[in-house]
Amino acid sequence: MTSGERLSEDELIARLFAPIAGAGAFSLKDDAARLQPPEGQDLVLTADALVAGVHFFATDPAGSVARKALRVNLSDLAAKGADPLGFLITVALPPDWTVDWLAAFAAALGEDAHRYHCPLLGGDTVRTPGPLTLSVTAFGALPTGRMVTRLGARPGDRILVTGTIGDASLGLALRSEPTSAWANVLSPAEKAHLADRYLQPEPRCLFARAIRDHANAAMDVSDGLVGDLAKLLKASGVSGELDLDAVPLSAAARAAIGARPQLLETAVTGGDDYEILCTVPEGRLTSLRAAADAAGVALSVIGEVQAGKGELAIRDQRGPRQFGRQSFSHF
Amino acid sequence: MTSGERLSEDELIARLFAPIAGAGAFSLKDDAARLQPPEGQDLVLTADALVAGVHFFATDPAGSVARKALRVNLSDLAAKGADPLGFLITVALPPDWTVDWLAAFAAALGEDAHRYHCPLLGGDTVRTPGPLTLSVTAFGALPTGRMVTRLGARPGDRILVTGTIGDASLGLALRSEPTSAWANVLSPAEKAHLADRYLQPEPRCLFARAIRDHANAAMDVSDGLVGDLAKLLKASGVSGELDLDAVPLSAAARAAIGARPQLLETAVTGGDDYEILCTVPEGRLTSLRAAADAAGVALSVIGEVQAGKGELAIRDQRGPRQFGRQSFSHF
Repeated sequence: MTSGERLSEDELIARLFAPIAGAGAFSLKDDAARLQPPEGQDLVLTADALVAGVHFFATDPAGSVARKALRVNLSDLAAKGADPLGFLITVALPPDWTVDWLAAFAAALGEDAHRYHCPLLGGDTVRTPGPLTLSVTAFGALPTGRMVTRLGARPGDRILVTGTIGDASLGLALRSEPTSAWANVLSPAEKAHLADRYLQPEPRCLFARAIRDHANAAMDVSDGLVGDLAKLLKASGVSGELDLDAVPLSAAARAAIGARPQLLETAVTGGDDYEILCTVPEGRLTSLRAAADAAGVALSVIGEVQAGKGELAIRDQRGPRQFGRQSFSHF
Repeated sequence: MTSGERLSEDELIARLFAPIAGAGAFSLKDDAARLQPPEGQDLVLTADALVAGVHFFATDPAGSVARKALRVNLSDLAAKGADPLGFLITVALPPDWTVDWLAAFAAALGEDAHRYHCPLLGGDTVRTPGPLTLSVTAFGALPTGRMVTRLGARPGDRILVTGTIGDASLGLALRSEPTSAWANVLSPAEKAHLADRYLQPEPRCLFARAIRDHANAAMDVSDGLVGDLAKLLKASGVSGELDLDAVPLSAAARAAIGARPQLLETAVTGGDDYEILCTVPEGRLTSLRAAADAAGVALSVIGEVQAGKGELAIRDQRGPRQFGRQSFSHF
């Protein structure tokens, strides 16, 4: 395929997307796919839309855009305790789309579909006079009745989070102020780490089983830790306390915040972490930690659920803290 | 709600979309939904994206836009022989969206969800600097192994189509040339009929069971009868003949084509019909007709499947016919 080439919708589906389609997709020759749900399992459904210039940069590599579109949905499934079954994607292509770009996009999507055992089942390609717009609907499965929601947190539960928080939002800040004083204290490897976490989330699929086995409530952190925890507590009808000093930070994030302390707020309210936030009864902590070790997932206790009416108290070693905003706002 | 009001994402979900959500959607308080698949059934999955200015007019009423977004997907399910189970929708809102518009959109979506027994299960709302962009993923169910695809047409099958063809594409033509000579021969009721069929498809959900009981192959007519039939024959690895004189036309379409014969090409290649095209063995025709009568669906034999390599021959009483284009092209 050459860069100036144009393809009809049927051609681009047959050449770029059919090779990455899974069983039940009929090589994308049909408008619809068949899914035979595993016996004794519930399905978990989630959908996320991503718009160029809003959720990613129009100049981001095609592969990064593809991976982000799928992975933000896989992250939702993992946080519900579900294993991936498949996905559909709709792609609205802007006037300047090229076959080369779409080929790289489809190839990366196929690699991730294979990596996460989440085959492409169908979708739609249309044109738009606006920016590239993607919508992914992903399906997962888990044993009947075992889906973990945001609604189940109970007083006394410990609040935990996987991985590290704030890398992606600091990576985004780095792109808008690459020559700032705080950026200059970072090593090239630290800069790359932050930038990469914004571009390419790592969904915690390997931790899904531990979530469904041990957590009372869970969600993925997509809009910022503080705001997302507030949402979880409110949905569960409980209150809670967040210990800022316990929030896990990468070495790169520590270096950035060391150089500019206000960046702590960016880190804990900025979003795009795609880590799993969960609440777990104390009696399950040991089992959860063992599962995290087995999955190679870091796990930190960052607070506690309390009886109450949906209030979140934030403190560090010096006392209570408040932030101007809690999370990324979509409007 | 007043017209100048702004809502946060959480508020608009809670106020506009949660009231129309189905069981398993947790009142949209979670990022994901649970679907308990009916035992002994396969799921059918389909997704369609719609962009303002491409698939509908930005000035179309909010209710029409909502109904079209859901119904084009319900039409896909019906053509596969599946009964609706639920849907997810992602909505990318342009900068000038208003609460009033979105409230009317959500209300109409809820009415259709109720009417077609297809509850809202989840989705995502984001902003876009571009046009309003909607993506719906719909799920249907049918007995295991009974999904009807485009791939099963066999030589000797009769080719049939429901309802009437061309009304929507003529309705679209009417919008771009409302004072043309052909438009002037139409009565106000005929104009309204054509305009309405473009704005609001009527998915053939009541015919889904007849399709899965009797059809070898089926698809909905969304991109134009001629092009869609050519796709079906090619996917099935057979050829076929289309009798143009047998294509069912409404009185309004007959009047328009009578005034301007070239509009026949618009009618059979223009798309947006959302009727069901299917191929059926001769021995099943009587049963299929009985099911159509019971469902109140008109049904016409328009051709025959033949052995071959995917060619479509088109004829009318004067002999072979060809068209400059076969169907709506998405690019």
